[in-house]
Amino acid sequence: MEENRNCQWRVARRPEGNVVADDFLYTEEDIPRPVDGEFLLKTYYINLAPVMRMYMSGESAAGEEPLAIGDVIHGRAVAEIIESNHPDFEVGEFVHGQCGWQTYKVSKGTAQEKFRKVPDIGISYSAALGSLGMTGFSGYFGFVDCGKPRTGDIVLVSGAAGGVGTHVVQIAKIFGCRVIGIAGGESKCALIRSIGCDVALDYKTGDIAAKIKAACPDGIDLYFDNVGGETLAAALENLRMHSRIVLCGSISEYLRDEPFGLTNYTRLRRTNSTMQGFFIYNHLDDFDRAERDMGEWLRTGQLKPVEYIFDGFEKLPEALASLYSGANHGIAMVRIRRGPHDDGN
Amino acid sequence: MEENRNCQWRVARRPEGNVVADDFLYTEEDIPRPVDGEFLLKTYYINLAPVMRMYMSGESAAGEEPLAIGDVIHGRAVAEIIESNHPDFEVGEFVHGQCGWQTYKVSKGTAQEKFRKVPDIGISYSAALGSLGMTGFSGYFGFVDCGKPRTGDIVLVSGAAGGVGTHVVQIAKIFGCRVIGIAGGESKCALIRSIGCDVALDYKTGDIAAKIKAACPDGIDLYFDNVGGETLAAALENLRMHSRIVLCGSISEYLRDEPFGLTNYTRLRRTNSTMQGFFIYNHLDDFDRAERDMGEWLRTGQLKPVEYIFDGFEKLPEALASLYSGANHGIAMVRIRRGPHDDGN
Repeated sequence: MEENRNCQWRVARRPEGNVVADDFLYTEEDIPRPVDGEFLLKTYYINLAPVMRMYMSGESAAGEEPLAIGDVIHGRAVAEIIESNHPDFEVGEFVHGQCGWQTYKVSKGTAQEKFRKVPDIGISYSAALGSLGMTGFSGYFGFVDCGKPRTGDIVLVSGAAGGVGTHVVQIAKIFGCRVIGIAGGESKCALIRSIGCDVALDYKTGDIAAKIKAACPDGIDLYFDNVGGETLAAALENLRMHSRIVLCGSISEYLRDEPFGLTNYTRLRRTNSTMQGFFIYNHLDDFDRAERDMGEWLRTGQLKPVEYIFDGFEKLPEALASLYSGANHGIAMVRIRRGPHDDGN
Repeated sequence: MEENRNCQWRVARRPEGNVVADDFLYTEEDIPRPVDGEFLLKTYYINLAPVMRMYMSGESAAGEEPLAIGDVIHGRAVAEIIESNHPDFEVGEFVHGQCGWQTYKVSKGTAQEKFRKVPDIGISYSAALGSLGMTGFSGYFGFVDCGKPRTGDIVLVSGAAGGVGTHVVQIAKIFGCRVIGIAGGESKCALIRSIGCDVALDYKTGDIAAKIKAACPDGIDLYFDNVGGETLAAALENLRMHSRIVLCGSISEYLRDEPFGLTNYTRLRRTNSTMQGFFIYNHLDDFDRAERDMGEWLRTGQLKPVEYIFDGFEKLPEALASLYSGANHGIAMVRIRRGPHDDGN
């Protein structure tokens, strides 16, 4: 990475299966200059989300323009305003929003970019990007607004060691729930226990439906689904009356040759249970509430971001691939450069 | 049928595929006599529901005892109390509840039998059995409580010409919804138009997903599912934001060799939509409300029961088979005998 150039990762070709190095094109260009009504951003962290592979495949989400071959890949970053000709954005402020996979960006601060200022509550800006950004907010709205948790609920979370999952586990404990987390491998199980899971189930060893049944003999009240597929089917076999399933993600579906056929959806009937889909950008109007609640939990230490940092802009392709290979835990982020609010982890 | 004998239909063997004559055993015995705390019922109509084949297969539902080979088949009937040694049930009263496939029954009036008195609102007792019994109540609770309809909603109903469907169509019109019904064949499509469907779609001709899209170019707000399978998948492709799917029945699943694999359940996500399962016996505590509302709609003529009457006790096996072959429309019932509150249809 050249500090005095705008470095970028672009779509070289449509990915097949997990992303590989040849799917990405690295380019450099001059740092752009903001004209009137624009400001210049210097990026510090970019966070990774499964939706990015979808963008690379040419699909559109959240109203973003579909990416053509050669376009800079969409991605949210925390960034410093280093020049401004825009009345609402001051030099020295930190914001997070749509910057793309690049080290600088000129912006008009459009609604589409969804820039939010990093609140002054003594948290690192990677925490602002992760926990007060789309990953943390997905956990918040999916669990609180869609899951409608009650104290004492038995909550099952898949992908519990992931970016959204590590938030849901901790929020569920704040709500006084009993939390059963599902993750792959012993080290991830240890991680989710350390952030509050009462029980950690390793889906890589043995039958997950049987494990859920053993951990929740009376069934579950709320299943927060980050993975879809067989795990969702296993959860459906273990519902209590009036239970809720929140479909947040289906990472298991992205790389499957054939989509999973859910045969036991009728299980919802006997228990009057609900399966609700969830998409973060449908909750835009309530982002201030999420930031207030999550910010307070971060400030008091009830919520501790779990971050998995890849160091250096050149690591972006590898970091995205890690979401599908399961190599990471917590929120996968790439640190572009260190700055004044880095927590030094 | 012998008038002075208790005639019964019993399970001869477990059905495979649709029920056939050899699955049933016809027997007669003396009319039983009620001892202290019991009363004797004479049955007039028995209504048919898909759950009965499940009973015959040895599965349990609604807390009923699983049926052994040789047992009298479970079924709800409207009946007259002709002898009583029970303080709460008087001779001459009409009730509906669990009588089984037989022409007389001695009962203790247990909670399990769920007897309800036919209300004195000037309706036929077949209407009481159908519309104020489990079929009508399934439409009521599934649509009103689970579907949470709003005036102007675009409502899609599959199995719209069936017992539950004909109720849902009419209740949806009472709620001021636009109703698109799905049924098989032109005569059923004509029927559902006659009870209020704004559009009738024939699933037997052409691609049902394309038909739904053409009828609801802006998508649907509420899908009331009586059939499951491919129709459910087609509905999932046509959801509006915050739409609701009510899973009431899945008649298409009963006779399938392999259960249907729902691959597009993730469609719930982008629209923040909900798929809710529904089982009538989970709403027991609210039956009085349903009877009050439905009774009022019957009394005012806003709700007109659609009944498909098989005449004669010996027709019960044929009537049950008709649910799966699609030969019937409305609520399939067998008339055992005519009586004082018969509407003569």
